[in-house]
Amino acid sequence: MRFSFSIVALVLEVITIVLFGIFVEYDYRDTPGTLYPFFQDVHVMIFVGFGFLMTFLKKYGFSSVGINMLIAAFGLQWGTLMQGFWHSKGGKIHVGVKSIINADFSTATALISFGAVLGKTSPAQMLIMTILEVTIFACNEHLVTEILQATDVGASMTIHAFGAYFGLAVTLVLYRPGLKNKHENEESTYDSDMFAMIGTLFLWLFWPSFNSAIASAPSNQIKAIVNTYYSLAACTVVTFALSSLVGQRGKFSMVLIQNATLAGGVAVGTCADLSIHPFGAMCIGGIAGIISVLGFHFLTPILASKLNIQDTCGVHNLHGLPGILGGIAGIIVTAIKEEKRQDVLFTPGMQAAALGSTIGIALVGGALTGGVLKLPFLGQTSDQNCFDDSVYWEVPEKENPHEIHSNKYEEHSGLDATM
Amino acid sequence: MRFSFSIVALVLEVITIVLFGIFVEYDYRDTPGTLYPFFQDVHVMIFVGFGFLMTFLKKYGFSSVGINMLIAAFGLQWGTLMQGFWHSKGGKIHVGVKSIINADFSTATALISFGAVLGKTSPAQMLIMTILEVTIFACNEHLVTEILQATDVGASMTIHAFGAYFGLAVTLVLYRPGLKNKHENEESTYDSDMFAMIGTLFLWLFWPSFNSAIASAPSNQIKAIVNTYYSLAACTVVTFALSSLVGQRGKFSMVLIQNATLAGGVAVGTCADLSIHPFGAMCIGGIAGIISVLGFHFLTPILASKLNIQDTCGVHNLHGLPGILGGIAGIIVTAIKEEKRQDVLFTPGMQAAALGSTIGIALVGGALTGGVLKLPFLGQTSDQNCFDDSVYWEVPEKENPHEIHSNKYEEHSGLDATM
Amino acid sequence: MRFSFSIVALVLEVITIVLFGIFVEYDYRDTPGTLYPFFQDVHVMIFVGFGFLMTFLKKYGFSSVGINMLIAAFGLQWGTLMQGFWHSKGGKIHVGVKSIINADFSTATALISFGAVLGKTSPAQMLIMTILEVTIFACNEHLVTEILQATDVGASMTIHAFGAYFGLAVTLVLYRPGLKNKHENEESTYDSDMFAMIGTLFLWLFWPSFNSAIASAPSNQIKAIVNTYYSLAACTVVTFALSSLVGQRGKFSMVLIQNATLAGGVAVGTCADLSIHPFGAMCIGGIAGIISVLGFHFLTPILASKLNIQDTCGVHNLHGLPGILGGIAGIIVTAIKEEKRQDVLFTPGMQAAALGSTIGIALVGGALTGGVLKLPFLGQTSDQNCFDDSVYWEVPEKENPHEIHSNKYEEHSGLDATM
Repeated sequence: MRFSFSIVALVLEVITIVLFGIFVEYDYRDTPGTLYPFFQDVHVMIFVGFGFLMTFLKKYGFSSVGINMLIAAFGLQWGTLMQGFWHSKGGKIHVGVKSIINADFSTATALISFGAVLGKTSPAQMLIMTILEVTIFACNEHLVTEILQATDVGASMTIHAFGAYFGLAVTLVLYRPGLKNKHENEESTYDSDMFAMIGTLFLWLFWPSFNSAIASAPSNQIKAIVNTYYSLAACTVVTFALSSLVGQRGKFSMVLIQNATLAGGVAVGTCADLSIHPFGAMCIGGIAGIISVLGFHFLTPILASKLNIQDTCGVHNLHGLPGILGGIAGIIVTAIKEEKRQDVLFTPGMQAAALGSTIGIALVGGALTGGVLKLPFLGQTSDQNCFDDSVYWEVPEKENPHEIHSNKYEEHSGLDATM
Repeated sequence: MRFSFSIVALVLEVITIVLFGIFVEYDYRDTPGTLYPFFQDVHVMIFVGFGFLMTFLKKYGFSSVGINMLIAAFGLQWGTLMQGFWHSKGGKIHVGVKSIINADFSTATALISFGAVLGKTSPAQMLIMTILEVTIFACNEHLVTEILQATDVGASMTIHAFGAYFGLAVTLVLYRPGLKNKHENEESTYDSDMFAMIGTLFLWLFWPSFNSAIASAPSNQIKAIVNTYYSLAACTVVTFALSSLVGQRGKFSMVLIQNATLAGGVAVGTCADLSIHPFGAMCIGGIAGIISVLGFHFLTPILASKLNIQDTCGVHNLHGLPGILGGIAGIIVTAIKEEKRQDVLFTPGMQAAALGSTIGIALVGGALTGGVLKLPFLGQTSDQNCFDDSVYWEVPEKENPHEIHSNKYEEHSGLDATM
Repeated sequence: MRFSFSIVALVLEVITIVLFGIFVEYDYRDTPGTLYPFFQDVHVMIFVGFGFLMTFLKKYGFSSVGINMLIAAFGLQWGTLMQGFWHSKGGKIHVGVKSIINADFSTATALISFGAVLGKTSPAQMLIMTILEVTIFACNEHLVTEILQATDVGASMTIHAFGAYFGLAVTLVLYRPGLKNKHENEESTYDSDMFAMIGTLFLWLFWPSFNSAIASAPSNQIKAIVNTYYSLAACTVVTFALSSLVGQRGKFSMVLIQNATLAGGVAVGTCADLSIHPFGAMCIGGIAGIISVLGFHFLTPILASKLNIQDTCGVHNLHGLPGILGGIAGIIVTAIKEEKRQDVLFTPGMQAAALGSTIGIALVGGALTGGVLKLPFLGQTSDQNCFDDSVYWEVPEKENPHEIHSNKYEEHSGLDATM
């Protein structure tokens, strides 16, 4: 792995820096203003939220939080360029607070897809996926918001559904028959589940900022904040109720609490800044919780066994289905109620076209990307080494600090001292 | 547990959504402005701060952070309604940034009480406690701020003392003689103490936002920020000094560092936006640290053994005593110095009445709530199953990831492979 | 330790409170405005960022996050006084949002030095180091910004290089020949490395706020934000590439990912608000990553073995070398391009003088401080007890929660039950 990864990373970074030198300028008119805190909230979601959410696997914490950081750090640079090209003026991309929010957004698609293939791909593969996915994302986003003129302020469609179906297509192409039976590393420990809750909570808490950050006016921003806040709250209560209902002997499942509680943030995204009423937001959130729990419980096993779609983190249930629900909610709301932004009237037809094109482009783009990732020099790992940090990281002995005595005891008694 | 919890949760959520549909509207005049970051800080305190602070128990991390999330997610919805009813206009509750800050605040009372009964109650009991406590809190807050016209910007009385004495009354009513001797699960591990420090730090850091979020003007807000900042700093140094002084062989105690360092934030709450001078804030903080350390060290064992008050997290020392200290500081400051807000003169008599009514209502409300929680269908657990996640959660094996060899060794040598 | 620490801490705190009573006033004209979120970001960096970054040692997590909190809580009070004396008006220090940002900044120097001596010093020693270092820092900062009129908005020189070389001088004076061979506690575990990533990420994420918080105008602030954002991103990709390149069998090293990814934030500090172009920021970040990785890999072992400088956290590679790089970048940029602030023209000569004086004062101040720390009543620990929380903390048994069965099994089979 040494040379393939290092060369890919350094070449991509040098190209990116050169492109920045040619094309990128400050937006000299910009100030941090009241928007900067929204950026920082989104920034925490991308690196801490996504990063720790994926640390639930018992031996894959370093990769989850580390490769998440790598993908996001590279993706935000590439995203600046790709999104900037569509908005460049005089051949220059002008960056300010809004640009870096959008750059963070664009990385979210790759991080969602990373969740689908988590544990089964190499860091070099992830860099290639990032550059391809961010590029395709920027094109689809331009199509949805500029050409179709659909609304998607919280990006239920353009980020969540896109990232999920892109990742599912990648993981389908990279299908590993050897993982048909559950891999021994594909489970959590008590502490890895605790670490994952750090990710869950920071995603949950800052989601109102995510859904409102790029709203066109403060009056829309406040609606997006309030709607997301109540949608998530309703979704969380419903998720706990259903987790107990479907769980063994009525017990809560950590995977559901870590993930399905967030579905309300995804699903309310498209309509977040519309006048759907807090009541409407809570209905969307509640339905999202139901869909997500049922998806994890019934659909994921079927996808894996029947359709050969091995979705490590269940991104289909957290981002895919709730993303589609958000898109459908957008169609319904624009059909019922006239919603405008700066003389653009949102129509249900265009919303439907946006949803369809997003999923279509994501599936095709993901499948092609999966094909590229099969290139041998990118260093696919063997089935046996999946979900294991020690393939890519120097991993310390997992030892209990305060057990010197018992360790010594073992040495005396002839037991294995690595215990 | 399956049906009782799920039914309670779903029924409460459906009722809440219906009430939102009838009563709640956006506050269309509101914008995020400079207040929104204060909301996000408070939001982190409620979910990450309180949630992780309680993860110190070795086998109760899932419940601490998970049920904390459940209580807060439901409580903020119910708090919106209860607080809103006192401020409704034309039969409508208008929600904006200030409302969601207040909604978060109202959940804090239930989370403090949750700390008192931690490990000894079921999730269904906690939902019932939340709905009752948030309702009573909203009434007492209306009494204190609108009828008595007392000042309590950082809610030393209305949130901290209220939540603590409410919780202590609940735990007294739910007294378990079987836990007279320390339960084997009622202790921490090295890592659970580390997780708890995440909660401590986020509470500590964002407390200036908590105490200043609803200040009436920016000039008062800045005083609340500065006072809280220095009160916490002084409290922290004093706590370390006293922890060493009372500890075995001069050693620091994690429970004190996790909790007593925060007492300065509680105690300065009532006076936070008054002109008490940073010097005054530091004196309050220092005294709060002393009271809290002594409370943990000497009072909590007595409360448990003599008064049958089993206070799992020691909320009496973190929220109860420092809350009273804050109330008393408010009496003294308003007696010494004329302090006004919008033509209301704060008087020491009214401050004392506010403190007394708060504690009285909390004790009575908590006792009644404790009685309700004894209803059998709410699923009280046995003494033996206390402080144990596995009663309510699917819990993974706690295994050390990188010990495959030693596990294999054990299998060969005939030892129990679950080790 | 009991009395020496407690007495030192209480005496220092009482003196500090008295000095606050005499000298400190509110800045009544201040409001939180749009600056307050920057303060909170910096605040999180100081307590969560630095605190958790240092938790990587397997038995030193309590001390890392706890003593970090103690140093910062005391240091911010002392820093308020020391920085305030240079800006006092009419014998009074006026505190507002900018003051508490600067107070937090001044603690960063002591926290960086703490990293150099981590595991080898007592809490009382750290309080003495803090008071001395913050005092000397405030003088040097005054020299650099007011007398030399150099620019250093993100404090590459005055905080990072200063804190690093101060700490290296302290650790040199406190040299322990007994630690020449690696101490058995001086290593990480899987979970301690995960905790450290919490620190890394919060530092990484909020660094744009650190570098822009005290910029003179919003237009400079936005440049500082954008430059730091892209510098860190480039540094991170380069760090991953080099970590793989120098690592055993191409594997990533956690110590590099935890630390060297941050070097881009340090190095871009001096020039952050200058018009260096995002391209220039990325070049600085990339070079910082290279220097930092090479420093950790090649230089730190040499410093320890040849120069008797035992740098526990490698602050030389994270703060020292990148800080110098930042200073040099400042010299180059001011030589190439005319940069002004409020009629002050920054000159390369003054930038060089600022860098030289900072390192010189840090080395001399650190050496003197190291001498003071050798005073016997401050309670230096033995070599054997280094890197061990249990010397200063009551430490719980590190036990696996869900192994009751296996524990019982062991009891039956006669094995040590403390296992």
